[in-house]
Amino acid sequence: MILTDLIGHTSRRVYLELKDCMENRAATIDSQSAPVSLVGAGPGDFGLITVAGLARLRAARVVIYDALANPALLCQAPADAELIDVGKRAGQHKLTQDQTNALLVAKARECLARDGAGGGGVVRLKGGDPYLFGRGAEEAAHLARHGIACEVIPGVTAGIAAPAWAGIPVTHRNLASSVTFVTGHEDPGKPETSINYAALASLVASGGTLCFYMGVGRLGQIVESLASHALPLTTPAAVVQWGTLPEQRSVRSTLEKVAIAVSEAGISSPAIIVVGAVAGISEPGLDYFLTRPLRGRRVLVTRARSQASELAAMLEGLGAEVIEAPTIDIVPADAASLAQVDTALQRLSEFVWLGLTSPNAAEALAQRLANLQLDGRALAATRLAVV
Amino acid sequence: MILTDLIGHTSRRVYLELKDCMENRAATIDSQSAPVSLVGAGPGDFGLITVAGLARLRAARVVIYDALANPALLCQAPADAELIDVGKRAGQHKLTQDQTNALLVAKARECLARDGAGGGGVVRLKGGDPYLFGRGAEEAAHLARHGIACEVIPGVTAGIAAPAWAGIPVTHRNLASSVTFVTGHEDPGKPETSINYAALASLVASGGTLCFYMGVGRLGQIVESLASHALPLTTPAAVVQWGTLPEQRSVRSTLEKVAIAVSEAGISSPAIIVVGAVAGISEPGLDYFLTRPLRGRRVLVTRARSQASELAAMLEGLGAEVIEAPTIDIVPADAASLAQVDTALQRLSEFVWLGLTSPNAAEALAQRLANLQLDGRALAATRLAVV
Repeated sequence: MILTDLIGHTSRRVYLELKDCMENRAATIDSQSAPVSLVGAGPGDFGLITVAGLARLRAARVVIYDALANPALLCQAPADAELIDVGKRAGQHKLTQDQTNALLVAKARECLARDGAGGGGVVRLKGGDPYLFGRGAEEAAHLARHGIACEVIPGVTAGIAAPAWAGIPVTHRNLASSVTFVTGHEDPGKPETSINYAALASLVASGGTLCFYMGVGRLGQIVESLASHALPLTTPAAVVQWGTLPEQRSVRSTLEKVAIAVSEAGISSPAIIVVGAVAGISEPGLDYFLTRPLRGRRVLVTRARSQASELAAMLEGLGAEVIEAPTIDIVPADAASLAQVDTALQRLSEFVWLGLTSPNAAEALAQRLANLQLDGRALAATRLAVV
Repeated sequence: MILTDLIGHTSRRVYLELKDCMENRAATIDSQSAPVSLVGAGPGDFGLITVAGLARLRAARVVIYDALANPALLCQAPADAELIDVGKRAGQHKLTQDQTNALLVAKARECLARDGAGGGGVVRLKGGDPYLFGRGAEEAAHLARHGIACEVIPGVTAGIAAPAWAGIPVTHRNLASSVTFVTGHEDPGKPETSINYAALASLVASGGTLCFYMGVGRLGQIVESLASHALPLTTPAAVVQWGTLPEQRSVRSTLEKVAIAVSEAGISSPAIIVVGAVAGISEPGLDYFLTRPLRGRRVLVTRARSQASELAAMLEGLGAEVIEAPTIDIVPADAASLAQVDTALQRLSEFVWLGLTSPNAAEALAQRLANLQLDGRALAATRLAVV
C-alpha cells in the first residue's frame, strides 16, 4: 500500500493526515469505460442490483434487457435512452441469441460512432448474474470477436436470494457445506441430459444443497431422476417463485410430495427449486420477509411524486408493494401565462406585495427569475407574503 | 396486478394514466424496519455492494463487520455510527461466534432502547453473501431466539464475481451446466472431512464447475482428494486472489500443476479455487478487467474532495486504484473572523462593492447570509465583483 511506501519518506504528521484522508475517502463509482456493460440485474427486488450496475444503467444510451430484469430498473435509464426487450415470454424468445449478439455489436458501434469511447454505452441487463446461466460469456466473446470491449458487472443470483427471502439459507454450518446451482433448462438440441443426477443425489445425501434454475416445468423429471439415484423421498425440497419480489410465493415439502404441492399452489415459472436439508429448516427468525406486517398488500400512493418517496420507502420497509400514482402533477404554465409572469417580474419594483400560495409557487418563481437572469436581489424592494 | 383489477372498473384513459405512472414510477429503496440487517458486502469492489445494502449502511447506528468487507464501505456509515470489527486476521477470530451473537443482541437492544423500532439499527456487514458460508443463518436464528427481528440483504458472492473478473464464467452453455460452491475451511472440530470428493470429481468429469472458498491453504489436499476420485490431472484449475479488488491476481493451470503455480506466484488467502473446463477458457474479451489501461496503477488525486470525484471516477473506469488525498481543504473561518464578516454583511448597504475571490467564497457568503436569516435580497444595493 502507498501508506507503507510513504511512511519511510515522510513525517509522522503527513502519514497521519494521509491515513485520515484514506479512511474518510469518499468512495466513488467506476465510470463506464467499455462500450458495453453486461450488468446483472439481481434476483428481482429493485434494491438488489449492485451500486455499479445502477450507475451503468443511469448512464446508458441503450439498454438491452431480458424478461427477468425488474421493469422498475428500466425507469432508471436516462429518459432518452433506447430500451430494447430481447427477453423471452411464454417460451418464445423475441430474438434468437444470434440476433441478440448482432444487436449488441450494432448498438455498440452506434454509440461509439456518436460519442466515442468516453460516452455512455450499451447496458446489457440480465436477470441475476450475467455469467450464471445467463449466456453472458457468449455475448462478451462475440463482442470481442468484433473488436468491442465489454465489462461484466456481477449480480446477486436468484439461487441464493430467493431461498434466503423464503427463510432458507443455502449453506449452514451444521446442515450444508456445499451448494450446487444447476440449470433445469437444457439446450433442447441435446440428445440426452448432461445433468449428472447420480453425483447430485450423492452430494445431497452427504449434506449438500441443490438449487435448480428454470426447472419448475420439469419438476417431476428432476424428482424422478434424483430418486432413481437413491436419494430418499423424505429429503426436504422447496420451490420459490418470483423470489424477492412482492409476488414471492413458496412451498416447503419433501422430494416425494413437492410436485403435488407446487401443482396445488399453482406455482409456475420463474421459480427456484431447492433440494437438501436446508429446505427443511423452519427456524423462526429466518422468515423475516414473510412476516413483514404489510407483506402482500399493494398500496397506491397518490401524493405528488417529489413528496411521496419518504412515505413509499416506509411502506416498502414494512413489506408493502407501493405503486406511486400521483393524482396531482406540477407542470409549467403555458407560454402566454409565463409571458405575463415574466413581464410582472421585470416590473417588480412597481409592486408593493408579492404573494406566494405554495412551495411550488416559490420554486416556480425562482425558476422564472433565473430564466430572466435575475435572482433574489430583484425581490429586495417588494414585500413578500407566503402561505 | 392492480392494473388488471382496475381495468374492469375504470375508463381506458385512467388505465393508460395509471400504466404511465407505474412505468415511470420512481423506484424507491426500502427503509430499514428490522432492528438488525445482515448485509452482504459483495466480493470486494466497492461498486459490487447492492443498492439496498448501501442504503442500510448509510442509515446504520452500529456496523459490526468482518475482515473481508471492503473498508471503503465503512466510510459510508454515518460519522457517528459505531464501527466494530469482529473479523479474523491471520487465523485468529477477534471474537468467537458466541461473542459475536451476544454483541448483536446487545447492540440491537441498545438501538431499540434509544430510538424505538423506527430508527436506524445494527448492520451486520459480511463479505460476499451472508448465507453462503457466512454463518448468517446462525446469527439470524440467535437474534430471533432473543426476540429481535433480522432481515437479510443478499450479496454478490466471490465464487461468481472473482472468476468473472479473471475472465472465467462459472457456467457456459457448451462447457458447464452446473457450478458447486464448497467451503475449503471446515470446522476443525470435525473428526473427518464431510466434503464428498467422489461426487465433486464426478460432477467435474461430466461438465460441472467447482469453486472452493477459503481453500487455498489446503490446495494440495483438495487436488489430491479430487485426483484420488479419478478426476484427470489435466483438468483446468485456476486460483483468484483478492477477486474484484485492485490487488486481484490469478493463476491458470491444471489440477496437476496448480499448487506449484500458486506457490510460485506467492498467492495466498483470500482466494477462490476454480476447477473445471471453464477454468481453461482463454477467450479474448472475457478478460476486460485484466486489460484496463491503468490496471495495477495507484493514483493519488490531490484536488479538493468536492472537485475530485469526477476525475477519480474516470481513472477508476480505466482500472486505476484511486486514493483521494486532497492537499487543500476548505474549512470555516474562526469565530472572530466570522463575527467580522457577519458585522459587514449586516451593514452591506454601506458598501459600494462586494468582491468574491472564488466559488468557495460565494458558497461561504450564502452560508453566512442564511445564518443571519438574510438572503440574496440583502445584496440588492451592492455591486458584485467575482473572480
